[in-house]
Amino acid sequence: MMELKGNLLSVREDVRVLDATLRDGGLCNDFFFTDEFVKALYQMNCAAGVDYMEMGYKASARLFAPEKFGKWKFCKDEDIRAIVGDNANGPKIAVMADVGRCDYKTDIVPKAESPIDMIRVATYIDTIPEAVAMIEDAHAKGYETTCNIMAISKCQESDIKIALGELAKSPVQTIYVVDSYGSLYPEEIRRVAELYMNTLDQFGGKTLGIHAHNNQQCAFANTIEALSIGVSFLDGTVCGMGRGAGNCTLEALLGFLKNPRYDLNPVLHFIREYMLPLKASGVQWGYDIPYLLTGLLDQHPRTAIAATKNGDTDYAGFYQMLLED
Amino acid sequence: MMELKGNLLSVREDVRVLDATLRDGGLCNDFFFTDEFVKALYQMNCAAGVDYMEMGYKASARLFAPEKFGKWKFCKDEDIRAIVGDNANGPKIAVMADVGRCDYKTDIVPKAESPIDMIRVATYIDTIPEAVAMIEDAHAKGYETTCNIMAISKCQESDIKIALGELAKSPVQTIYVVDSYGSLYPEEIRRVAELYMNTLDQFGGKTLGIHAHNNQQCAFANTIEALSIGVSFLDGTVCGMGRGAGNCTLEALLGFLKNPRYDLNPVLHFIREYMLPLKASGVQWGYDIPYLLTGLLDQHPRTAIAATKNGDTDYAGFYQMLLED
Repeated sequence: MMELKGNLLSVREDVRVLDATLRDGGLCNDFFFTDEFVKALYQMNCAAGVDYMEMGYKASARLFAPEKFGKWKFCKDEDIRAIVGDNANGPKIAVMADVGRCDYKTDIVPKAESPIDMIRVATYIDTIPEAVAMIEDAHAKGYETTCNIMAISKCQESDIKIALGELAKSPVQTIYVVDSYGSLYPEEIRRVAELYMNTLDQFGGKTLGIHAHNNQQCAFANTIEALSIGVSFLDGTVCGMGRGAGNCTLEALLGFLKNPRYDLNPVLHFIREYMLPLKASGVQWGYDIPYLLTGLLDQHPRTAIAATKNGDTDYAGFYQMLLED
Repeated sequence: MMELKGNLLSVREDVRVLDATLRDGGLCNDFFFTDEFVKALYQMNCAAGVDYMEMGYKASARLFAPEKFGKWKFCKDEDIRAIVGDNANGPKIAVMADVGRCDYKTDIVPKAESPIDMIRVATYIDTIPEAVAMIEDAHAKGYETTCNIMAISKCQESDIKIALGELAKSPVQTIYVVDSYGSLYPEEIRRVAELYMNTLDQFGGKTLGIHAHNNQQCAFANTIEALSIGVSFLDGTVCGMGRGAGNCTLEALLGFLKNPRYDLNPVLHFIREYMLPLKASGVQWGYDIPYLLTGLLDQHPRTAIAATKNGDTDYAGFYQMLLED
């Protein structure tokens, strides 16, 4: 096993916390957040010392009907500016751009004209060449970039190595370990992160990130375990809001980190004032038995999301259905 | 770091799963489970292949008024027999006996006359001599024994070593790592388990157990991490039912374990038929922000239990109060 980087009392200067509440959480309510909510979340991130705030997706308005989604599905520059102004002392602003779902050539303007700081390119392993093209485009326009390879629990290690080799040649700065199905256990997350690090070390200059899902209640544990062996960029969401079982909670993460630039208090205030009413309004996310079962079987959570939405509690029948897939 | 014992595809023959639902869960409802619930839970454990079922506490009726608690606070032999009969093919039956709260000399009869198989002696580190006396008594009467040293996150490592040295000389078979406050992270659990193993290895013949709490959503992760470095006895509870934030869920644990003698299906049925109604009846347990905060600060969960019971959502005020303690 790898040596631990830092310890529980030290500050790791390479660590960056990214709040993905609007982006992954937006998958729970089709991005229909109120402006008041988004402004308060931005203020929270400013006060808490969060390093990056992901505003949502940069989705193609040709592919997704704008009337069916809130504005954070599209993250127009003017909508972001209405929230963050000139963002003098706030977190860096990130958006996610999915391969095949983003008109990046036209919708992403040069960074000098945009409030956005970072483009996070999300890809499956078989569309890495397109992801690299998007990364090169964003880099040429002046943005920081990440590449989030999704659903890696379904990928062969040899394919991951090839993908990482391609990304290593690109200008991408940060490559994310993404446990899309929440199927990985801490020892697997360490093994995968180690694979990423060992492969990328030959090329140099890349940092690693972790984006975890909470299907088996391992999102926080997996995040800090990845951190402990050298991963730097850590995704969290307030109350773990995110698709299905949700994500690593930002509150546990900031509580854990010892760097005095982070402050947990603004997050605690925000939870009371905004997250509890949001949850009470009927937006659904968070650990439940169907998510445990799709995570256990390394399957996409869509069946579990449907079961939870329908209030289907025939867990044994659901499990059998998954086993027959 | 220690070598991993076994791997994610292997069966570890030393592993034993203990269902602590009635005992730790009983702390949420003063042990007022219906006989129907307890019988169904016993049947579930039989069908699921669970190795041990903890029925509750063997508490002193001199110290605790029997009319204020359900019968599983006292675990009389006749009450256990009414559930398990002769327990021909079921799990071994365990009860917990707290140092200072159990009339063990009179209330624990020789094993030959009792349906109980295992006495779990729970102690704080400063009452180890009394715990050893109870272990010797139970051992002499023919029982398997464990010793659960509670609140170890508050203990000095040098004191833990002394305590383990005393226990090593006793006839106790299994010594538990107990994270009473849910304050330990996976890397700490591994370090503590390693300390236990290294200390006890000099004496030989003892096995280790893990009992985790879910304050920081690490109960399951901590349990399987302890397992991975050599801990054998694993406590779980259905739906994580247990004091405060609750425990490692039995369903995640059985799903994780690869030994074909365990079957997840009976647990899934039981959750639908018994746990959902119990939760709907108003019994409270499970992860919530106040538990995260007491776990983070390594404090007893009693303040968080009170806050949760009162529906107090002033999390920031609660956090300040804890910090001033």
